[in-house]
Amino acid sequence: MSDHKGEDALLVFTPSGKRGRFPLGTPILQAARSLGVDIDSVCGGRAICGRCQVELSEGTFAKHGLTSAPSHLSPLSATEQRYAEKRGLGAGRRLSCQARLMGDVVIDVPPESQVHKQVVRKRAEVRAIALDPATRLYYVEVAEPDMHNPSGDLERLCDALATQWGVSSLSCDLGVIQVLQKALRAGQWAVTVAIHHTERDANRIIAVWPGFHDQICGIAFDIGSTTIAAHLCNLSTGEVLASAGMMNPQIRFGEDLMSRVSYVMMNPGGDAEMTAAMRDAINLLIGQVCEEAAISRDTVMEAVLVGNPVMHHLLLGIDPVELGGAPFALATSGALNLRARELDLHMNPGGRLYILPCIAGHVGADSAAVVLSEGPHLQDENWLIVDVGTNAEIVLGNRQRLLACSSPTGPAFEGAQISSGQRAAPGAIERIRIDPATLEPRYKVIGCDLWSDEPGFAEAVEITGVTGICGSGIIEAVAEMFLAGIVSKDGVIDGALAARSPRIEPQGRTFSYLIKDGEPEIRITQNDIRQIQLAKAALYAGARLLMDTMGIDKVDRITLAGAFGSHIDVKHAMVLGMIPDCPLNRVSSAGNAAGTGARIALLNAGARREIETVVRSIEKVETAIEPRFQEHFVAAMAFPHKTAPYPNLAQVVALPEPKHVGGADEEREGRRRRRRAS
Amino acid sequence: MSDHKGEDALLVFTPSGKRGRFPLGTPILQAARSLGVDIDSVCGGRAICGRCQVELSEGTFAKHGLTSAPSHLSPLSATEQRYAEKRGLGAGRRLSCQARLMGDVVIDVPPESQVHKQVVRKRAEVRAIALDPATRLYYVEVAEPDMHNPSGDLERLCDALATQWGVSSLSCDLGVIQVLQKALRAGQWAVTVAIHHTERDANRIIAVWPGFHDQICGIAFDIGSTTIAAHLCNLSTGEVLASAGMMNPQIRFGEDLMSRVSYVMMNPGGDAEMTAAMRDAINLLIGQVCEEAAISRDTVMEAVLVGNPVMHHLLLGIDPVELGGAPFALATSGALNLRARELDLHMNPGGRLYILPCIAGHVGADSAAVVLSEGPHLQDENWLIVDVGTNAEIVLGNRQRLLACSSPTGPAFEGAQISSGQRAAPGAIERIRIDPATLEPRYKVIGCDLWSDEPGFAEAVEITGVTGICGSGIIEAVAEMFLAGIVSKDGVIDGALAARSPRIEPQGRTFSYLIKDGEPEIRITQNDIRQIQLAKAALYAGARLLMDTMGIDKVDRITLAGAFGSHIDVKHAMVLGMIPDCPLNRVSSAGNAAGTGARIALLNAGARREIETVVRSIEKVETAIEPRFQEHFVAAMAFPHKTAPYPNLAQVVALPEPKHVGGADEEREGRRRRRRAS
Repeated sequence: MSDHKGEDALLVFTPSGKRGRFPLGTPILQAARSLGVDIDSVCGGRAICGRCQVELSEGTFAKHGLTSAPSHLSPLSATEQRYAEKRGLGAGRRLSCQARLMGDVVIDVPPESQVHKQVVRKRAEVRAIALDPATRLYYVEVAEPDMHNPSGDLERLCDALATQWGVSSLSCDLGVIQVLQKALRAGQWAVTVAIHHTERDANRIIAVWPGFHDQICGIAFDIGSTTIAAHLCNLSTGEVLASAGMMNPQIRFGEDLMSRVSYVMMNPGGDAEMTAAMRDAINLLIGQVCEEAAISRDTVMEAVLVGNPVMHHLLLGIDPVELGGAPFALATSGALNLRARELDLHMNPGGRLYILPCIAGHVGADSAAVVLSEGPHLQDENWLIVDVGTNAEIVLGNRQRLLACSSPTGPAFEGAQISSGQRAAPGAIERIRIDPATLEPRYKVIGCDLWSDEPGFAEAVEITGVTGICGSGIIEAVAEMFLAGIVSKDGVIDGALAARSPRIEPQGRTFSYLIKDGEPEIRITQNDIRQIQLAKAALYAGARLLMDTMGIDKVDRITLAGAFGSHIDVKHAMVLGMIPDCPLNRVSSAGNAAGTGARIALLNAGARREIETVVRSIEKVETAIEPRFQEHFVAAMAFPHKTAPYPNLAQVVALPEPKHVGGADEEREGRRRRRRAS
Repeated sequence: MSDHKGEDALLVFTPSGKRGRFPLGTPILQAARSLGVDIDSVCGGRAICGRCQVELSEGTFAKHGLTSAPSHLSPLSATEQRYAEKRGLGAGRRLSCQARLMGDVVIDVPPESQVHKQVVRKRAEVRAIALDPATRLYYVEVAEPDMHNPSGDLERLCDALATQWGVSSLSCDLGVIQVLQKALRAGQWAVTVAIHHTERDANRIIAVWPGFHDQICGIAFDIGSTTIAAHLCNLSTGEVLASAGMMNPQIRFGEDLMSRVSYVMMNPGGDAEMTAAMRDAINLLIGQVCEEAAISRDTVMEAVLVGNPVMHHLLLGIDPVELGGAPFALATSGALNLRARELDLHMNPGGRLYILPCIAGHVGADSAAVVLSEGPHLQDENWLIVDVGTNAEIVLGNRQRLLACSSPTGPAFEGAQISSGQRAAPGAIERIRIDPATLEPRYKVIGCDLWSDEPGFAEAVEITGVTGICGSGIIEAVAEMFLAGIVSKDGVIDGALAARSPRIEPQGRTFSYLIKDGEPEIRITQNDIRQIQLAKAALYAGARLLMDTMGIDKVDRITLAGAFGSHIDVKHAMVLGMIPDCPLNRVSSAGNAAGTGARIALLNAGARREIETVVRSIEKVETAIEPRFQEHFVAAMAFPHKTAPYPNLAQVVALPEPKHVGGADEEREGRRRRRRAS
């Protein structure tokens, strides 16, 4: 504390609680910096950017022993007045770079004025992310050239950045050097630069604008085998400005990953075609989100991309053939920092890309993004996270230990290779219930809120029709068939029931269940059930293998990630034995966690270092060479299945009594007997 | 020393003299490394590269107290035998990675087996350069992928480089990642990589070849306003493999620098045209030198480029208009590290470029290269280095202090704006002597060894003809005219001599001197002499300004750099007063010192750091705003000139008695009087 009581005043910041005495006349921003209070600024205290806004907390603060009054801050300065007229200043708001301390005050720093503001996430249970992007804007005033001291314009810019912002170890993109002289002169020796801060403490100037430039953006891409999604974010606020998605144009080369890898094997140069198609699609999406947000592509300085290993390699222009067969060697598993132009992506010419690390040949950067989004490495429970697609990527573990594997579920969960299957689109059955007494179904289709037995349903689906059954619908259909006794524990449709219901129809040597007649007929065949059995057994076996490796026989918590995971009904999934037993209220859906992980890496540079470290520590379990995987797989074919008790499920669902009980041999024998009988 | 005398032996290396005792059976290369003896190796001791060859020094070495016998090394190993059969092994030569110590020996490491071998330079007086390029080759054996530990191919390559070579902090170009998997499999898990070592201790893999790859190259470019020269160097040996040069195609946009800058000012987009023309020319030269050396462009991993500021900016794609007027601001003065593809240069796709720093708006990277080549900053004398072209770049100083300026000499020294002037090409007069008694000239032309008064001269020049007079010829002609009394100290052709010789002819109000009649007539006009006076006065004034700034009135040593500087006759230059007085044996020519400096930066990464540091310390003197420059310029118009005594010159040349003596005013008055008289 100063002895000159009349010459300084107490300043308290909320919500941080940081406080100190400062000489009267000290700008609030300067005092905040000296106390380490987090207040944003792009213009460096020149009343241009308006990022440093604060509020005077009026009234008596008994706790702080002081009375805060408007007169304890200097009146609006001329530049502040100009800012208020030009861009508007909320009631009670001041620019902390202009307002000066005139007496004891309590100053509140609103969330949007903090540099490391929290990024809002929709789900309550997930951790908060602080905004701390790799690229930031800096407004600087640069010395004019002087013949007596003939340094380059770039060197004077770097001097200004060091003096005015304390940024050193600077280098500069050639593209910026090429336009720098014009920008400096157009901005009358004031420019805003975007600086990319890399992990090695190297700071790189990657863009320049004349005068004051307010906004830069980034895009998070989730590149799935089927769809590509893009989220445009404001790098200063973390706000999502626009989102867009489109089908992955590679679908024309093959529906699933392996058919695309095969395409490359059969067609030399096919990888280059697919790479070009994917990059074109990404460029189209960049255009779409920029148009939607009404910003220029030049404002996009960063992109983060995630995808499974085949998408990852094709995006990078790497032939994915090695991923098509054992030992499934990735060209690189590490995270990549690239320039946008290296992948021909059309954003700001100095734009930077970050690609998350891959975990293994079957567990890609998308899985790493799921881990980053959910944070299993930050908690102590045995948490099972499953991202269901053509392959299921499975992560299990906690703070001490994380395991990952990929399990070949095949495309059944996506409605492919199912007789009435289709993609999740309007008209597809997504919910189904079967009355155990009558064996009659009722269902809901995507795009309609009514159940099929409710009045007005027929009219409501007149346009879309009822066209097929999507992944989550199949899960429910098979589970309901099991619960209704139509399907046995071993997955056999009970032909004897044909006598009780016309919906049970013979089809060759097996039977099918008719959900809907008319055009088209929608039914579940014996083969559909086999496909679901194969898929769910693979998924369960993968999870089980990780549990074995971890030395546990139950998990504390399950999260289903991906589009499929967010539509699936947990109870039905457990009835089928897709996932291990777990308290049902501890099973949740994470939605597009891979996309969220990409967005986190976009907004927080520290998260990149975090996921790189975590991925290096993840133990990879290869299902293809693990004999126990085959054992679990065979045992998991039954509903729920032979070896796993489901005490939690049993509390909420009345599971039917088994009709066939026995080992794999007995099951095969049973099948043989039934075949002979038909 | 070991107690087990029978189990180790003494090993002495020459020429280093390093010595030690090692267990019998130790490979010589391993012993060398442990002693810090400098032996090269690319293959890491696998008898592939042959870089580690040594010689057994036979006989008794009294000094070392031991007898060296062939039996004191292990016999040729099978792999060594194979190497000798395949690639040849000189008599007495052994691969030090294979030969093992079997008894006391003296081993000689020949120069070509040293990592930091000396780069041979033609001139004896310049310092030696050790070979230490920024990019090096490493042969590695990489672990095959393992499903139980699924790391990427790149990660296993990096592990191998760390283990086998101790290279860490590795990153990798995307272009290498794209081809890595094929290279590893084609090389059966052995590859050679090129690693670029940057100043920040970051190591970047920039190329990969399957198996063992022997050679990488680099090219040093000197980009002059008139010509572009390229020298292809082997980065492993330092050897110049091929050289080529061509006219700078920008000449079609303007002969000199300022006319090219004007072209840009008048033609929007003109800078892009000139940039493209220059890069095309560079690509053509890359092709030429590679063809001459019979190597692939893919072998070229590095290029170093130097040029004056306008060439520097146009090469980089920077509009040079700011260099066309005060304050002559460079876009950047710092050194640049770029990728070849950033400038569209066609070498290895991972090729790297280094561009030396510029000193000031008129003193470019070419001048920095001259400093690097000559090393004035490494010695104590007051050394004046002049690079003569359209502008003269002048450096003065020593270890303590270096000054630089640029002086606008104009194109007269290159034969432009001279009535009979032409470029230095066959047929151009380059030497001339005038008999003071008869005033008759004799001369030599480029492409012919005879003087014009020797028998056979007419026949010898029948093909080329005598077509004009080049820069060095003009210097001699004017100096000889002065020595013969044809031209006064003030630069006036004495019309009175027309009575004595028909070669003195009236031309309007002045006179000219006829060197050769016939087609074409070659003569020196009064205006030619004025042009030479302006040029040499500018050059002298620049040098003098630096001497003033340094506080000295004589220099210890003068070096003339550049093509012009290497053809000029020192004595004649001094007779004209182009350069200050200096002992004539301390005036030398450095030839293409800028090109040599580029070559040094190509072969020695440390030299890059050195010149960057030196350039930052150079004091720039701007002639355009320095009043003393004008004073020196006016005073320096006379031959030699009014204010500077030439005691050293006077010892070797009988300077004519002055006919007109007086100040600038008197000179002007004299001219007026003569004009009235004619």
